[in-house]
Amino acid sequence: MERKEISKAVLKRLPGYLSYLKSIPDDTSPYISATFLANALGMGEVQVRKDLALVSDGGRPKIGYLRESLIEDISQFLGYDNTTDAILVGAGKLGQALLGYSGFAAYGLNILAAFDVNPVENQAEGRPIYPIEQLESYCRTNKVLMGIITVPGQYAQEVCDRLIACGIKAVWNFAPTHLDVPAGILVQNENMATSLAVLSMHLQAQMKDKK
Amino acid sequence: MERKEISKAVLKRLPGYLSYLKSIPDDTSPYISATFLANALGMGEVQVRKDLALVSDGGRPKIGYLRESLIEDISQFLGYDNTTDAILVGAGKLGQALLGYSGFAAYGLNILAAFDVNPVENQAEGRPIYPIEQLESYCRTNKVLMGIITVPGQYAQEVCDRLIACGIKAVWNFAPTHLDVPAGILVQNENMATSLAVLSMHLQAQMKDKK
Repeated sequence: MERKEISKAVLKRLPGYLSYLKSIPDDTSPYISATFLANALGMGEVQVRKDLALVSDGGRPKIGYLRESLIEDISQFLGYDNTTDAILVGAGKLGQALLGYSGFAAYGLNILAAFDVNPVENQAEGRPIYPIEQLESYCRTNKVLMGIITVPGQYAQEVCDRLIACGIKAVWNFAPTHLDVPAGILVQNENMATSLAVLSMHLQAQMKDKK
Repeated sequence: MERKEISKAVLKRLPGYLSYLKSIPDDTSPYISATFLANALGMGEVQVRKDLALVSDGGRPKIGYLRESLIEDISQFLGYDNTTDAILVGAGKLGQALLGYSGFAAYGLNILAAFDVNPVENQAEGRPIYPIEQLESYCRTNKVLMGIITVPGQYAQEVCDRLIACGIKAVWNFAPTHLDVPAGILVQNENMATSLAVLSMHLQAQMKDKK
């Protein structure tokens, strides 16, 4: 179907639908309605209906969507069908954990290689780790568009600048730092420190209430 | 200082300040002003000033904050000083990656043990992996308050319900699924699938613009 403009809010809800649709056992009805999906996920029916209409034109009145087609439409919309090549900078504990996480393939992410100032081990989980000096030549040769930053906070901006100079258009930032980027570059922050702070704060408040 | 009510938005900014403060070389001035911090992070001065005033009363006019004290105040506020014990359910690739990530210690998180339906390897990175049947007894014996969910989406709600029945008050959810929880329980979602969708969508848009 023709691609429509879509808000970030919708985009954030789509993986949830997809995950739920994939979890439905094969032996149930091949059709699913927006109403059913909304109830299952505890969401508003109107919102689900609108979201689905943006990514699939397979919905039929009173019947709903063919589940398999809807899964395909959402996956395609989210770009999970296309493989995105990425490189990772900072092969410390977190970087190596991400390198070793095979689950990314399901979302179309392929981490080609990692770079580090100190490439002591020269590979992790089958992916090469190169010295950081080779970053520029590698990115240009392989036309990489996505960079994953897993260096300590104080080096993140410098690494980000180098990635952008190499032609990177999307940055997945795991460093707990704000990154300045020019227009046209997207930074997606994955701040585990923030998440932990939110959780920890909640537990502290719980303890206080108990006293 | 006395604890004030604080919004989630402020809470999300605090780890960024902390990370930057820690990255400042030791040989620079021991003092830092809200203005300096705001400029360094590309943020509004008024916002930074207000945020810092919520967590520290060490700010002095024209001088600013003693950097070491401010680091301590923010860390304490965020609960990084207290160690939070957690257990993890789902010792697949992602679960094992988190078990092996030593960086959590800096944020006061201590993953005691993992549980899995299929504990083939009985430990990962020095942490025990127990059969899921032992979840309830372990949580009660060890009075665990935080649970980390890294099971596939379709099992996440069931695991979440079991954790809550065991007395868990805060859930860190890495499964790409919405979780229903009773009042008083906090769920913090870490949805890598969503992040990847946002990044991938941006790259697709970039490609389209090029054509």
